[in-house]
Amino acid sequence: MFDPSAVAVVGASETEGKIGYEAMANAMEFDGPVYPVNPSSDGDLFGVPFVDSVTDIDDDVDLALCCVPGPATPDVVAECGEAGVGAVVIYAGGFAEAGDEGERLQRAVVETAEEYGISLLGPNTSGFVVPATDLLCSFASGAEKLPEGNTAVIAQSGGIAHVLAFQSRRQGRGVSAMVGLGNRANVGFTETIEYFDGDDRTDAIVLHVEGTDDGRGLLEACRDSDTPVIAYKVGQSDVGEFAESHTGALTGDHELYTAGFAQYGVPTVTATDELLDAAAALGDSPVPDGPNVGVVTAQAGPGIIITDRLQRAGGRLPALTAETQERIDGILPGVTYTGNPVDTGRPMPEFGDVVTAVAEDAAVDIVLVYELFEQSVGFPVDALDGLAERVEKPVLFATDGIEEDMADDKAALAAVDVPVFETPERAADAAAVLARYGEMQAAGTDSEVVADD
Amino acid sequence: MFDPSAVAVVGASETEGKIGYEAMANAMEFDGPVYPVNPSSDGDLFGVPFVDSVTDIDDDVDLALCCVPGPATPDVVAECGEAGVGAVVIYAGGFAEAGDEGERLQRAVVETAEEYGISLLGPNTSGFVVPATDLLCSFASGAEKLPEGNTAVIAQSGGIAHVLAFQSRRQGRGVSAMVGLGNRANVGFTETIEYFDGDDRTDAIVLHVEGTDDGRGLLEACRDSDTPVIAYKVGQSDVGEFAESHTGALTGDHELYTAGFAQYGVPTVTATDELLDAAAALGDSPVPDGPNVGVVTAQAGPGIIITDRLQRAGGRLPALTAETQERIDGILPGVTYTGNPVDTGRPMPEFGDVVTAVAEDAAVDIVLVYELFEQSVGFPVDALDGLAERVEKPVLFATDGIEEDMADDKAALAAVDVPVFETPERAADAAAVLARYGEMQAAGTDSEVVADD
Repeated sequence: MFDPSAVAVVGASETEGKIGYEAMANAMEFDGPVYPVNPSSDGDLFGVPFVDSVTDIDDDVDLALCCVPGPATPDVVAECGEAGVGAVVIYAGGFAEAGDEGERLQRAVVETAEEYGISLLGPNTSGFVVPATDLLCSFASGAEKLPEGNTAVIAQSGGIAHVLAFQSRRQGRGVSAMVGLGNRANVGFTETIEYFDGDDRTDAIVLHVEGTDDGRGLLEACRDSDTPVIAYKVGQSDVGEFAESHTGALTGDHELYTAGFAQYGVPTVTATDELLDAAAALGDSPVPDGPNVGVVTAQAGPGIIITDRLQRAGGRLPALTAETQERIDGILPGVTYTGNPVDTGRPMPEFGDVVTAVAEDAAVDIVLVYELFEQSVGFPVDALDGLAERVEKPVLFATDGIEEDMADDKAALAAVDVPVFETPERAADAAAVLARYGEMQAAGTDSEVVADD
Repeated sequence: MFDPSAVAVVGASETEGKIGYEAMANAMEFDGPVYPVNPSSDGDLFGVPFVDSVTDIDDDVDLALCCVPGPATPDVVAECGEAGVGAVVIYAGGFAEAGDEGERLQRAVVETAEEYGISLLGPNTSGFVVPATDLLCSFASGAEKLPEGNTAVIAQSGGIAHVLAFQSRRQGRGVSAMVGLGNRANVGFTETIEYFDGDDRTDAIVLHVEGTDDGRGLLEACRDSDTPVIAYKVGQSDVGEFAESHTGALTGDHELYTAGFAQYGVPTVTATDELLDAAAALGDSPVPDGPNVGVVTAQAGPGIIITDRLQRAGGRLPALTAETQERIDGILPGVTYTGNPVDTGRPMPEFGDVVTAVAEDAAVDIVLVYELFEQSVGFPVDALDGLAERVEKPVLFATDGIEEDMADDKAALAAVDVPVFETPERAADAAAVLARYGEMQAAGTDSEVVADD
């Protein structure tokens, strides 16, 4: 599915705006051969001759993008089986999400697929994208501009998969893959989590979950993943009928999910931007040893917001050791506030030294730095370069300013793998996810030790 | 303060990086005359000759930016009084936020100011900015690039004033003014709310509140404002000592504030981005008659998130009338879902007609539209142009996609005054603020009627 040698687009169309056209246009970006399949079409599409059936292709097609309407799907899947295609993406709706008849249709497709050992993504999905190999198996426009990153997006809704991928781009990040599961005919959360846990390009996995019949399978896949997983379970209030009309799943009991995720070591969040922030924090950082956050701020206002929000979301702000406080007083005599947060009052050349002092404090598991951009001082890039690795703690940075003025400094931070956040609240939320993750990891290790006894 | 004919920068400095330099550099953008004041300096600064004292300036200086250290401030304020200057911004810290001696110093400054009838902004603030007149009374870099908008930002913390202004710029919005109150010596929330309520450029006022001794005055100023006010009260958990070290105010009882704001018709939010989104929704929209939201979405996933979040935040999703449902069925036979939300399944040319149908439904007070950008279809700009005015209801729009691909369409929406939001959650939060505001207004009108009886 995610690493094919050749791709077929079944139901490829010459009519712009049709899914069969958009899917083919996007698929053409792929480095390997791409074949348009349509028995009603002659001639070429994007310079490649149409074929009547996947069984007519000599090449080794691993992946077929099925752009035909629902009722024609079972035949296409059977043909793919005959042709030895191992994976099929089904974009069409009208399956399990659309009542009894649709359910029967979906069952028929799944039975055919399992006969031939085919992995089915969808139906009722916008597909997937792997930016590193330009594998654009989505009909949405803009898929070709998604940048490569180290977060795998796995969303129950194809629409939310795209929302997350576009947001990630706007944040200057990117994705290792973006997958919309749709109805999860036979490729669901467990299969994709397992796959991307083994994917070298992926350092964090984010889940958008509406609901699933196999909650246990989902949780166990999360627990078994060495790659950190963060989950966004939607549907806290009753969205009943509408949710069912979507991907054929009820949104289920929100509290039960949240508790289950926590028990299986998965931090949960409550918004799309928070999900991507958490992935940036977890994917680019050492695993924290606990929930203790050391906050350094150059302005008190953001410091208060961060402190308040962190505390409410499961982070702790320990007192810094006397040594650290003395050290900071030595760096900045008369500094505004040397508790935790440390408030330097303004950006200044010594700011990086203060951050280093806090990062080296034994009471601190996670470091969060806030500094409004000031042109004459810039960011403490040298101090932050390699700091997280050296102290083996996450070091997060948040700022605000005129985007183009701070672009170079922000790029410099990205180049040395410092996760950067856009608002005080979002930085605090990301640090809180790290804190909760750190606490879960610590608890998990403890219980394993007990179990070994 | 906010509309001077000439400005003096007291303590202006030739040393780059010093507040007296940065403040002078920014002030020079102002259209009127700007005078550097410093008895220890000779020659020019940015081409303007230094003067020894504000009393030496012949021009009619209304506003002085005081860049001297705390202890020198009382003399500067007295000199300003002698020179007939009506407003002074005090940047320095070391006043009420810094213990007993600082409190004495602040009292001395306030007494002097009141003797001469001077309005004091600060101390301990980064100042203010009015983009429309290039009045940049802040020492922060980038102030000159803040775009003009219709939201007045009034923040207790100068840092947060800048956070909000920079964010607003990144969101493609802008501010009518950005004010950091700091210690609120004698210009506080009440004075600034009153001023910006009367300001023609301001359609919404946002407050960042840490704490105040005069809660009643703040609430009454909000109630008396014809311009909608939205408040962000920080400090739900105990940030005690650190908060006091900041602007000399305790963060106080959060629930009491929230209840007070609600009672006085002020919606509250819990984050900086939410504050600006709420201002965009309220400032650019007709006042809604109630909390009933009609949601139209081109993708189900965002629709579920929006529905869930709206319901939890005080919005209601009423059933659409049978007429509207029939009308939508006529526009899009076999549409995915015609409850509320209406889910069209994909963007399509008829999308704008569907939005219009929902906007014209009598059960709907507020319209929220979500549509991922699809290049071949674009946004329904024609349908949205003038719709809110015609139906006398707020019409909000949220989307995601590749920024540069949708830039023209987004600009077209902005040109016809449609508020646009960045994530499904933030759009839902903004609509929920409108819903709560609509309900407050309805309740307020009722109780006034009762009171008149």
